[in-house]
Amino acid sequence: MSTQINKLVIFGVGLIGGSFAMALRQAGGVKKIIGVGRGSSNLDDAKQLQVIDEAAKNIQDALQGADLILLATPVGQMGEIMQAIAPHLEANTIITDAGSTKQDVVALAQEYLANNITRFVPGHPIAGAEKSGVAAAKADLFQKRNVVLTPLQQTDSSAVSVVENVWQACGAKVSKMEAEAHDEVFATVSHLPHILAFALVDYVRSKPNTEELFKFAASGFRDFTRIASSHPEMWRDIAIANRAALIDELTDYEAELCHIRKLLQASDAKSLEEIFDRARNARDNWLKTQS
Amino acid sequence: MSTQINKLVIFGVGLIGGSFAMALRQAGGVKKIIGVGRGSSNLDDAKQLQVIDEAAKNIQDALQGADLILLATPVGQMGEIMQAIAPHLEANTIITDAGSTKQDVVALAQEYLANNITRFVPGHPIAGAEKSGVAAAKADLFQKRNVVLTPLQQTDSSAVSVVENVWQACGAKVSKMEAEAHDEVFATVSHLPHILAFALVDYVRSKPNTEELFKFAASGFRDFTRIASSHPEMWRDIAIANRAALIDELTDYEAELCHIRKLLQASDAKSLEEIFDRARNARDNWLKTQS
Repeated sequence: MSTQINKLVIFGVGLIGGSFAMALRQAGGVKKIIGVGRGSSNLDDAKQLQVIDEAAKNIQDALQGADLILLATPVGQMGEIMQAIAPHLEANTIITDAGSTKQDVVALAQEYLANNITRFVPGHPIAGAEKSGVAAAKADLFQKRNVVLTPLQQTDSSAVSVVENVWQACGAKVSKMEAEAHDEVFATVSHLPHILAFALVDYVRSKPNTEELFKFAASGFRDFTRIASSHPEMWRDIAIANRAALIDELTDYEAELCHIRKLLQASDAKSLEEIFDRARNARDNWLKTQS
Repeated sequence: MSTQINKLVIFGVGLIGGSFAMALRQAGGVKKIIGVGRGSSNLDDAKQLQVIDEAAKNIQDALQGADLILLATPVGQMGEIMQAIAPHLEANTIITDAGSTKQDVVALAQEYLANNITRFVPGHPIAGAEKSGVAAAKADLFQKRNVVLTPLQQTDSSAVSVVENVWQACGAKVSKMEAEAHDEVFATVSHLPHILAFALVDYVRSKPNTEELFKFAASGFRDFTRIASSHPEMWRDIAIANRAALIDELTDYEAELCHIRKLLQASDAKSLEEIFDRARNARDNWLKTQS
């Protein structure tokens, strides 16, 4: 089943929004793409790169006749955008988002998009990168990547199908789960590692011999901390939005570190090797499942 | 200044030992390379790959007329090897090592190589990888990489020069520092991140929904945990050898995590963004200094 979008409106034409535009256009799944953003310079770039057809002059005109709206801004801006679009939404317009957290976005939609809640399909493409901005966007960003949709009980199944189809047209594998389960899973496999990487770099930076430390940091440090080059505002919003789950994860992870520290204090080489060995096996088995 | 090694003996012909052999041979800096190892299968591979000229039949013959001995085994094996070689060392033979920790190796050398301590040059090439074994060895592994030497007060400067020259011939940048300072620096920029990565994978592996978690783990998780595919025995030895510094690092890092957790509990978005922003800037500035 294929879906043709006549008019797509993207709020936030950065890495995710821009790549979605490029991928869907390449798949022949969209006729016209309108970009909306805070500043004009990124939208100018997006137009010049032919990622969007035009930058919106005002929201009312932009939303007129829109089949699909994608909210691809940091989650901290979504409430304001929902309030701005709500008065201009048409009955058939489907709204989806690309936020990395889902319970907070769902709560905002229930508050601000109440009249159109049956047409709101919360989504999360798992295809971040430490780069940001439309210049980093690319048509194949979502190829074979997971996209998780967390529809509400009230969401129309036809709206879910449309969003599922457009993501599949972009090359993605679509899964569905509850918003709460989503936020717990990503607190563990994404939000926690980001916090750990930011924390490590900030820790090294704060040491008196930071220059010497960075001199001898090598490829292991570089890869471990790659995600610490991620967008600070975006990660602030994610951390705050999913803070309950993230606090639980940090608490449990700190307990694991404390356990390892005690093994070191006891010079328990055998138990340390068992942990390292279990970890390596688990990771290597996981890698085999990745294409 | 160039140095010609007539006979090089390598204990542990794996990633590091094998790459050293290949690099030095490619640079024309060595005539004959003898490999020594625990099992015969890796040495057979090393000979077949022409990384070594021959596998040692016994230690006495191997060491006869040797200019240079490289100990490239996990640090946990070095004491035993030093005891085995001590009776057969000739006065002019220089001994160096490639251990990731230095104070423990120095202490072992002071105990077991007392008669040859002026010819012992402790070293650490900063060119690990999560791969191990001679099959992963390559001649350019040390190109533009740092090698740290931590000579003792008694070490002959001529012996230090030889080891410095052979590493430079392999393409490396050589630095010198005290063994204690070395171990503190690498506790921060290498040993701590390895522990954090092993701990995270072991934590995810231990969760009841581990299969779902790994399904949605993406490229950020993959890179963050790359070093958790490192050699468990080698890292057990490093962790134990440098446990005092590593315990300090873990304690301080846990305090940083605790601080971040409290910011989350207080919903202090501004302070979180400041940490993320500082970390990103520090990392991006560091990357600019890397070739």
